[in-house]
Amino acid sequence: MIKSPLQIARESYVPKMPSSLKGGIKIVEGKATESVADQADIEKMFPNTYGMPVLTFEPGDAKEYAAQNVGVILSGGQAPGGHNVISGLYDGLKKLNPENKLYGFLGGPGGLVDNQYIELTEDIVNHYRNTGGFDIIGSGRTKLEETEQYEKALVNCKELGITALVIIGGDDSNTNACVLAEYYKEKQAGVQVIGVPKTIDGDLKNEMIETSFGFDTACKVYSELIGNIQRDANSAKKYWHFIKLMGRSASHIALECALQTQPNITIISEEVEAKQQTLDDVVSYIANIVAKRAENGDNFGTVLIPEGLVEFIPAMKKLIAELNDFLAHNEEAVNALEGNKEKREFVAERISDESREVFVSLPNSIANQLMLDRDPHGNVQVSLIETEKMLIDMVKAKLKSMKKAGEFKGKFKGQPHFFGYEGRCAAPSNFDADYCYSLGNTASMLIGEGKTGYMASVRNLTAPSSEWMAGGVPVTMMMNMEKRHGEMKPVIQKALVQLNGAPFKKLVENREEWALNTNYMYPGPIQYFGPSEVCDLTTNTLKYEQQ
Amino acid sequence: MIKSPLQIARESYVPKMPSSLKGGIKIVEGKATESVADQADIEKMFPNTYGMPVLTFEPGDAKEYAAQNVGVILSGGQAPGGHNVISGLYDGLKKLNPENKLYGFLGGPGGLVDNQYIELTEDIVNHYRNTGGFDIIGSGRTKLEETEQYEKALVNCKELGITALVIIGGDDSNTNACVLAEYYKEKQAGVQVIGVPKTIDGDLKNEMIETSFGFDTACKVYSELIGNIQRDANSAKKYWHFIKLMGRSASHIALECALQTQPNITIISEEVEAKQQTLDDVVSYIANIVAKRAENGDNFGTVLIPEGLVEFIPAMKKLIAELNDFLAHNEEAVNALEGNKEKREFVAERISDESREVFVSLPNSIANQLMLDRDPHGNVQVSLIETEKMLIDMVKAKLKSMKKAGEFKGKFKGQPHFFGYEGRCAAPSNFDADYCYSLGNTASMLIGEGKTGYMASVRNLTAPSSEWMAGGVPVTMMMNMEKRHGEMKPVIQKALVQLNGAPFKKLVENREEWALNTNYMYPGPIQYFGPSEVCDLTTNTLKYEQQ
Repeated sequence: MIKSPLQIARESYVPKMPSSLKGGIKIVEGKATESVADQADIEKMFPNTYGMPVLTFEPGDAKEYAAQNVGVILSGGQAPGGHNVISGLYDGLKKLNPENKLYGFLGGPGGLVDNQYIELTEDIVNHYRNTGGFDIIGSGRTKLEETEQYEKALVNCKELGITALVIIGGDDSNTNACVLAEYYKEKQAGVQVIGVPKTIDGDLKNEMIETSFGFDTACKVYSELIGNIQRDANSAKKYWHFIKLMGRSASHIALECALQTQPNITIISEEVEAKQQTLDDVVSYIANIVAKRAENGDNFGTVLIPEGLVEFIPAMKKLIAELNDFLAHNEEAVNALEGNKEKREFVAERISDESREVFVSLPNSIANQLMLDRDPHGNVQVSLIETEKMLIDMVKAKLKSMKKAGEFKGKFKGQPHFFGYEGRCAAPSNFDADYCYSLGNTASMLIGEGKTGYMASVRNLTAPSSEWMAGGVPVTMMMNMEKRHGEMKPVIQKALVQLNGAPFKKLVENREEWALNTNYMYPGPIQYFGPSEVCDLTTNTLKYEQQ
Repeated sequence: MIKSPLQIARESYVPKMPSSLKGGIKIVEGKATESVADQADIEKMFPNTYGMPVLTFEPGDAKEYAAQNVGVILSGGQAPGGHNVISGLYDGLKKLNPENKLYGFLGGPGGLVDNQYIELTEDIVNHYRNTGGFDIIGSGRTKLEETEQYEKALVNCKELGITALVIIGGDDSNTNACVLAEYYKEKQAGVQVIGVPKTIDGDLKNEMIETSFGFDTACKVYSELIGNIQRDANSAKKYWHFIKLMGRSASHIALECALQTQPNITIISEEVEAKQQTLDDVVSYIANIVAKRAENGDNFGTVLIPEGLVEFIPAMKKLIAELNDFLAHNEEAVNALEGNKEKREFVAERISDESREVFVSLPNSIANQLMLDRDPHGNVQVSLIETEKMLIDMVKAKLKSMKKAGEFKGKFKGQPHFFGYEGRCAAPSNFDADYCYSLGNTASMLIGEGKTGYMASVRNLTAPSSEWMAGGVPVTMMMNMEKRHGEMKPVIQKALVQLNGAPFKKLVENREEWALNTNYMYPGPIQYFGPSEVCDLTTNTLKYEQQ
């Protein structure tokens, strides 16, 4: 393994931990819990893991723990700090009992089913402390949903003597972890299952899970880049930069980056949906700010766009649904036409008036993409839509007509950007390094204490790390019933941006000023060695939520 | 002005300086110089500034300097460290004589001609120390080439009592600075002109200018991102990331980033040209490595692509020239056709066989772009060509046919990236902060010593900064004659990547191993406060060149 100078220097960083995790612990049990909604349904589906109390660790006497073999799995998209969850888990297990062993299943949940694993030794773990990526054991997107998988996994666990599994993943993976916990408890299989809340998207959070790990680091990387681009915009004074940010459905990343960098325009999907805005509304909103800035001589600016935007515009959502339906039944007829122009016309004539209006308003390249780039199930691939370019084209067209009407006298040149892969595997910030290590350690304690169906929880995160509160939250507590693929399923509620929440309100308070003035903030790159006010702060989202 | 915590912490950084700049200086003159080529022509055009000696500063007695008003201009694209050149210049001037004044012309060379300026006071300068961007006075791309401009500028200088100008720019701006120096010296106008070598592209360098400022920081930002993406590639194991890097014609940035991150594939334009490779050669080279890695089960990887690539592929260069020519004469006929398909066919039938072959091999979107996206002069806009997407499409097509022939058994999914604006205005690394401050200081000394037609030079840059050698290099020394817009002009030779140079050789030595194995290096973000081996190193390019 080749290491950069920073990696080498960073290897020796010792993550800061809550005081309660430093010595022996005492578990304080809260009262019985209920799921956030659909209590009767959830209880029925999780008879063995429903209603358990929230657990809080407090300093206590050192105890002896029987030796256990534990398996760990990284599930889904990468998030900074995954390696620290594993090193925290490893160190925690060894502290509980030096005989404890940790196995890593390779390439995600699929590795558990297919029995692909390595034993994680001190030597291996040491190479990955405080590094980014999930490459220590790899990740994957196989979903653990079938009884056959659970049974295969159980055979593999038995073979290795594994009595506990830790699943590090997002809302779906943790839902599945809980189903697995219930299944193994029901059949008294002797395998505990503990979840750890991971995702850069920030949409796995609730009263007990203040933030998912990786969100802090990823937002800081994107904010570094946005800040650099803003400084460029403000120096060259000739481009509008349209910056799309990863984050799936929720706009948490766009919101947090906006609070860190103070761009001229930030689109929040949840607001677009709540206000029932059309694509034209969004385009007009941007074009009007471009025109107003131009009046001050400022023909430059920045726009932050959340990845999921198009799905939150009701008319676009309808268009996409209609296209999915229409193309499923008319693929041959469309393919038989030669040019894209003919194809677009053919489609436009055969969808609803409302959708046609949206469809013909789109730049040709985007309309083609909606028509032609479909996934193996025949659906439009929303995540591939280049929203940032689409908006540049549409704002340009809007400004052209505004110019004719005398409503715009400036210049407009757009530059598109899309950031996602740049931040998912960054080396964790101090916050994520500490938080993840604590989560891993917490998971080891929940295992030692014989718990299952719990998610590791570390709270009070805006306080100094010594005051963080570690413990466990029953996964069922975060669940409700939602329709998935036409069926009602128990799932962890996805946390979208709350329009009455403090972080969004902060944006609303400031956005008019940020739009017209140039109040850019330049956060710079993540620092690991400097003063605490530079290195140890976490997100504005957490700060405002906890104020 | 709103400042981030890092900006505040970084304000107090005191740039490290060569010992020779710390106290009084003594100037050591070298022997008379000659231009690198076309000596007779250059001497004839620069009778007053040709043949001057190289100047080296050595510690000497403190002297008294008469008070001077000085003007400073930022010219062309942003590069990290510009603000430190200005703060170094400001501090240097104040040290020479506290009565000295510094004026900043706004928005680039145009500000000098139009007399747009501010006085740069201690208070203003302090806000910008060690920050990125050129926003202190803005930059611009107006070229100082006309006598009328020189005369207007002179009137403006006289009005402000300015007796020296510092022009911070790339090769073209420094060429123009030297023409201006010659003009003012010829007419004894009493205004000195000093250049400072700026550009992230790294193509302004020679025996006396070891590197241009900003190259170090920009490459570090891009390498941070490439490293993060590589860690993601190696964790998810399902994408090939095609990463295009800014840098105009030269491939220095791609080469330096390759040495910092060890990607699977690096394309160097200068090599493509030297080997007279076709686009198909480049595509095959990439596809073959993709296929070989797939044999090892590695369906992921990274490819670095220099921005200027297409212009270095002889057949593409020819195609672009033919298209420029053809479209200039047949614009109406092309526009009269309705669909892009018809337009492409119309064009294809009317260009040379060789160019047609290339043209029809291109993905439609790229062929359309070549045909339709033209600049106000009617030329194809090479810088807008999405080479990264073009190569993904073409490699995909190549692999499809290789699959049919049984030569490829893996999977291929490409992800395009383009990095440029992300790095041009980053806060300078320690190296660039120190180097730029020293360059600014050196410029102030050259002014105090009454020099003109010189570029500030700081050398021995891989040694500790105390051992750096500061001085001045006659700009004429770096010049030769080149054809520009059909006319022979004196210009500073652009430094392309040397195929017999140590940095490129290092890539060649390693690239086979890097291609097949996964030897990724993850440099991480620029650090300002950590150990010296993390914070103070400069580029591999400089290291290998000076070894």
